[in-house]
Amino acid sequence: MQYKKNFHQIKSDNEIFERLNDEREKIGYYGLPYQDTTDIKDYARTITKKHIIVVGIGGSSLGARAIYEFLLPSNTYEKELLFLETVDPLEINHSLKSVELHNTQFVIISKSGNTIETISLFKYLSSLVEINSGNCTIISEAKSGLTQFANDNNIKAFDLAENVGGRFSVFSVVGLVPLAMVGVDIDNLLNGCKRVSESFFERGEYYQSTIKKARFLVEHKVRFKVNTIFSYSSSLESFNKWYVQLWAESLGKVNINGTRQAITPVTLLGPVDQHSFLQLIIDGIRDKIVTFIKIDDLKDDTIIPISTSNKFDTLAAKYTEGLSFNELINKQADATIQSIEDQEGIPCDVITITTVDEYNIAKLMFNYQLLVSTIGQFLQINAYDQPGVEHGKIILKEMLEA
Amino acid sequence: MQYKKNFHQIKSDNEIFERLNDEREKIGYYGLPYQDTTDIKDYARTITKKHIIVVGIGGSSLGARAIYEFLLPSNTYEKELLFLETVDPLEINHSLKSVELHNTQFVIISKSGNTIETISLFKYLSSLVEINSGNCTIISEAKSGLTQFANDNNIKAFDLAENVGGRFSVFSVVGLVPLAMVGVDIDNLLNGCKRVSESFFERGEYYQSTIKKARFLVEHKVRFKVNTIFSYSSSLESFNKWYVQLWAESLGKVNINGTRQAITPVTLLGPVDQHSFLQLIIDGIRDKIVTFIKIDDLKDDTIIPISTSNKFDTLAAKYTEGLSFNELINKQADATIQSIEDQEGIPCDVITITTVDEYNIAKLMFNYQLLVSTIGQFLQINAYDQPGVEHGKIILKEMLEA
Repeated sequence: MQYKKNFHQIKSDNEIFERLNDEREKIGYYGLPYQDTTDIKDYARTITKKHIIVVGIGGSSLGARAIYEFLLPSNTYEKELLFLETVDPLEINHSLKSVELHNTQFVIISKSGNTIETISLFKYLSSLVEINSGNCTIISEAKSGLTQFANDNNIKAFDLAENVGGRFSVFSVVGLVPLAMVGVDIDNLLNGCKRVSESFFERGEYYQSTIKKARFLVEHKVRFKVNTIFSYSSSLESFNKWYVQLWAESLGKVNINGTRQAITPVTLLGPVDQHSFLQLIIDGIRDKIVTFIKIDDLKDDTIIPISTSNKFDTLAAKYTEGLSFNELINKQADATIQSIEDQEGIPCDVITITTVDEYNIAKLMFNYQLLVSTIGQFLQINAYDQPGVEHGKIILKEMLEA
Repeated sequence: MQYKKNFHQIKSDNEIFERLNDEREKIGYYGLPYQDTTDIKDYARTITKKHIIVVGIGGSSLGARAIYEFLLPSNTYEKELLFLETVDPLEINHSLKSVELHNTQFVIISKSGNTIETISLFKYLSSLVEINSGNCTIISEAKSGLTQFANDNNIKAFDLAENVGGRFSVFSVVGLVPLAMVGVDIDNLLNGCKRVSESFFERGEYYQSTIKKARFLVEHKVRFKVNTIFSYSSSLESFNKWYVQLWAESLGKVNINGTRQAITPVTLLGPVDQHSFLQLIIDGIRDKIVTFIKIDDLKDDTIIPISTSNKFDTLAAKYTEGLSFNELINKQADATIQSIEDQEGIPCDVITITTVDEYNIAKLMFNYQLLVSTIGQFLQINAYDQPGVEHGKIILKEMLEA
């Protein structure tokens, strides 16, 4: 009998750290916090169109969207950023209804340059409005046909490095160019990334918390198969989607021992999902880990007014009168956290974001990228490829060519 | 040794059918397809405001939202329907920015009448605009404090029957009243429900497919712990959220033998999530069932144009030129389905919706309600309560009163 499996499957923290350190040489996202943003900012200042439409899918849109929709409700931007991701014609035409196409900058993003959805949408848009150097920006690998198209037509192209994968590209030109165009402070985004990166690679607090969490998830992966994020602000809904892609596509893999790996990502929004998925967390099978994300200061002081007449006497929730909604939503988070901590067998942690700004969302997202890389090393998988989706692409191509 | 468990846990189809038939006497949603809608339609015709704002959370908003957002991209409604669900102040104020409050009908929905989020929002709105019989509609149980408030202030109130639970209330006044106000054909919704209900209770095709699927899910619940819906149209995004609540809150329960039950609901949108969660389905642990939902006719003939010059020669996806986006998205669904069917150990089925209208979305939703009821009977749980979330509500109340 032969058994070839690598028995030392769960490595020591030191070994994992060394491997992550080695990864910095070849995996591009680690270096992004330290890039020079001058060219991006100079170019963004030249864009004067009212609408910015990002045409891109998956890693080409989810990151910028997460940051923009986090910041949007508490900021006023002069330009509007829109994302055309899908080929659903109802969605496309519904989105375009509210847009003046002649006052729009089109940002076409595809790492490979041949993403079927993005190229099909680009061709459709080209039939509605003339696409030229005055209204188009292209972001792709230097060697792609899309970059060639840009060069042939004198359109500004930003090169995406080959070693920056789509779902790790939010802090590359993929995210920074469209965000800079609407006025997001991209240097402050990178400051947040640097804070986390330095702490991690100097084995500071972010290293300690990240490796501890990764180890827990890996050591208990058979028991806890679902990793739930419960975000207590609607402004984190797109962050949730970004996390699902990062997590699922990086960690749903066959490892070096030929064993299927996966911790399923699930996302919730509070307080809405207290009225939905929470019941299943509490009374269902105990196979879930829950991470709560709270925002301390939503920069909003809207108050639930105190009734001055007896008009509302028959209505409930007297005790919320005089509270700010900011206080109420955080109390709801605290009560839900408490109700889960009171159970046995539901591991739970809490991430508190100080306030709504570039620095804080970047810290959160860069730390999640490091967490996924760390788990990838523990699981002995390649966190940076996506071999499982190639089969479907080939089938589609054959169907369409037939 | 004593062992008190009920060994005949998985009942026969006949026994399940009899129990479901018995449930019709006490569970209100079964009767909703047969209600008289005259009062709702007559009242809805009197509403002339431009915006309709539903204030409600969970079961009070998810159903109407699913139907409205399914129909919206392919229909033109004179009024705009908005949903205020959360107490996140950023979301509240961002939503209200685009609304003329003096030209708004407020539909306040809370089954119990004391939902903390809904009542807090209602009080806040009352401080922005005078709420009276001319701009407010209330939907609640007859005995609630909210209905009392309506009666005291001469505001129109619709009674929600006590035996219709929130997540089964989409075809009651909870969903029908706001939908009728914007011009949705609510009788055609009920026609879709009737079609499914009659087929089910006459043991026709909907009975056969539903009980077969429920039995499969229950018999394999230890192996397949995640029930994934992969919807191939963005217009089904809110349907996906409705399904999560229906599924998680109904089925995440302790059963009559004291055993925790749960099949975790996960939702995806195609083609976007081909670039995200799909990798994990294909290469990750094989613990997922996937249901694809396709829409045959999106009522949209937007074509990807055929290039007439050589301008686009460096771009890929030549073979999508001349296709409609409607064809492309369905081919993408077919290719993804095929790529999953080519794997072993990923059970998969396909629901095809004929077209985008009231009849078809109602059929889908009513059938999902029956599926959940059927699974509930197999699992020997109460699918209609939500005891797990009460503890958090008590903690919150104590925190706020302190």
